[in-house]
Amino acid sequence: MTTRLTISLDAMGGDKAPEVVIQGVQIARTRLPHVDFLLYGDQARLEPLLEQAPDIRSVCTICHTDQSVSGDDKPSQVLRQGRRSSMWLAVDAVAKGEADAVVSAGNTGALMAVSKFVLRMLPGIDRPAIAGFFPTERGESVMLDLGANVECDARNLVEFAVMGEVFARIVLGIEQPSVGILNVGSEELKGNDAVRGAAAALKTGNLPIKFHGFVEGNDIAAGTVDVVVSDGFTGNIALKSAEGLARLYANFLRDAFSSSWLSKLGYLLARSALVKVKMRTDPRRYNGAMFLGLSGIAVKSHGGTDALGFANAIGVAAELVTHGFNERIKRELERLHQADEASAQAAAI
Amino acid sequence: MTTRLTISLDAMGGDKAPEVVIQGVQIARTRLPHVDFLLYGDQARLEPLLEQAPDIRSVCTICHTDQSVSGDDKPSQVLRQGRRSSMWLAVDAVAKGEADAVVSAGNTGALMAVSKFVLRMLPGIDRPAIAGFFPTERGESVMLDLGANVECDARNLVEFAVMGEVFARIVLGIEQPSVGILNVGSEELKGNDAVRGAAAALKTGNLPIKFHGFVEGNDIAAGTVDVVVSDGFTGNIALKSAEGLARLYANFLRDAFSSSWLSKLGYLLARSALVKVKMRTDPRRYNGAMFLGLSGIAVKSHGGTDALGFANAIGVAAELVTHGFNERIKRELERLHQADEASAQAAAI
Repeated sequence: MTTRLTISLDAMGGDKAPEVVIQGVQIARTRLPHVDFLLYGDQARLEPLLEQAPDIRSVCTICHTDQSVSGDDKPSQVLRQGRRSSMWLAVDAVAKGEADAVVSAGNTGALMAVSKFVLRMLPGIDRPAIAGFFPTERGESVMLDLGANVECDARNLVEFAVMGEVFARIVLGIEQPSVGILNVGSEELKGNDAVRGAAAALKTGNLPIKFHGFVEGNDIAAGTVDVVVSDGFTGNIALKSAEGLARLYANFLRDAFSSSWLSKLGYLLARSALVKVKMRTDPRRYNGAMFLGLSGIAVKSHGGTDALGFANAIGVAAELVTHGFNERIKRELERLHQADEASAQAAAI
Repeated sequence: MTTRLTISLDAMGGDKAPEVVIQGVQIARTRLPHVDFLLYGDQARLEPLLEQAPDIRSVCTICHTDQSVSGDDKPSQVLRQGRRSSMWLAVDAVAKGEADAVVSAGNTGALMAVSKFVLRMLPGIDRPAIAGFFPTERGESVMLDLGANVECDARNLVEFAVMGEVFARIVLGIEQPSVGILNVGSEELKGNDAVRGAAAALKTGNLPIKFHGFVEGNDIAAGTVDVVVSDGFTGNIALKSAEGLARLYANFLRDAFSSSWLSKLGYLLARSALVKVKMRTDPRRYNGAMFLGLSGIAVKSHGGTDALGFANAIGVAAELVTHGFNERIKRELERLHQADEASAQAAAI
């Protein structure tokens, strides 16, 4: 028998909310029949949508609020005035123990600020990180931080390595994920103090992490490591640069296939194989960025995603709850602190 | 009548030197009949290659040295012991006025260190930058710094903006290139001190630069601006992340087209259109990274490139010489300093 879970949803967050949220729940429902949903948002808009979706009526509870966070709202503003917003209430449901995890497709900065304020950090973690997935030659990899922290020191990067490693084990099912630190070269002398310091700490072997060393930008898609660690400034820009190039490629290909009747025919013949490529690189497959380091599970869906993407974000949240993600992070952090103390003692002798 | 130029070549630099260098000169010769070449390297290896290339014999002078820089040599080591290397001598030819520009496909770090030491910085420039090209939806853009400076302050970024703008005008032929600073968001409050400070300085309008503001990673390939400015750590990783994704896409497509006889046939029909996509994204087209900010023109070719790529790097060098690149940079820098003084005086009143 599977234990039932509850996931709270910011039903008003995202470009196409609340419609996409409801449709996402419909898709998620068939994959995750053991999940109940708390829908935070405007009852007058949610009720008619649920009436048209009788398949999910029994697993959904509407929690009415008429306030919501927009894409332009500043995090500080939301912290001051947003306590009755659908985002805040959905996060708060996790803090109160009414939900096991929260999913929102709303404003990333606001969601991070509210989650930090309401859920608090895990003991021993200085900074939260945003982790996401990336398609690679070998399957998928995890990358973090994708933008929660513009500046990071060595200690932050080591914490990201610990959290990312557990995340990859749970969500990608890799027994012993390899971890690399993003840098401008693979030699030990390259890079800034933060990456060199973090690499030195991870190399001591005091932590039970399969540390590969430095990786470069091209190693991300090559799948050289399972977990790519970076500060949030670089990670965000690396991910978006690659996304931009993927879009460029897709546009060039579309132009090419529509440039003559011969290439149109060629497309038709190769279509089923090309659709597979599209699926392998479909951004919806990689939707669901996790906020790591918080005392509670919060997943950010891309604001512009569709129902399938939103359902995938719900899937990531459910997976993390089922596998006791935060408990495992806590255990790893204890090991990290023990290792620190051991090396401090060794240094003192 | 076109004035003759002289370009010095590190004939022993790069993975496939000296063969690729000689073949590159052969391709460049047909496009640039007004260029003479000084080939620095091992006479015993160069002479037989030139004998097989009578078409370029008259424009090539071999300058013998038996020392060369390898890919593993550390920059500091080359500075101490590499004064007789083909790389050093080729750069020195520019310092001595014997050549108008230098091209090398050797070790980037060593080439940068030697170029800085031998050529010195342009007056008023604190740090050199590596600039390169990037394919975009709208054509091509210039991006810098691609790895010369791991850490940069606001002033460095403003200098990069000035140099990159002139570079885009000359090499891409854009009359008034737009300039953006790479950041994690387009709002003014985003990012670190360096990017915010640089944006504030460029926004004053004291510099004759069409400043767009902040751009994000996905804007690079979208071609939102003609010149993308960033510190060398982020720029290097952004460029390589995108390169990695391009390779991933190419591999996925190759797999797709060879997955069945139907898709193989489809490929054959669409082939001529697909070859155009390949050409538009061919890394050899974007070969030739320029070292900006030095008192002399130095172009770095990719170490693994072929003859066509090397010829393109020679083409970039010739273009910069012909258009008096460094003279124009100097004029822009004077304007920058006048603007600085004007705002200092305004502040003092």
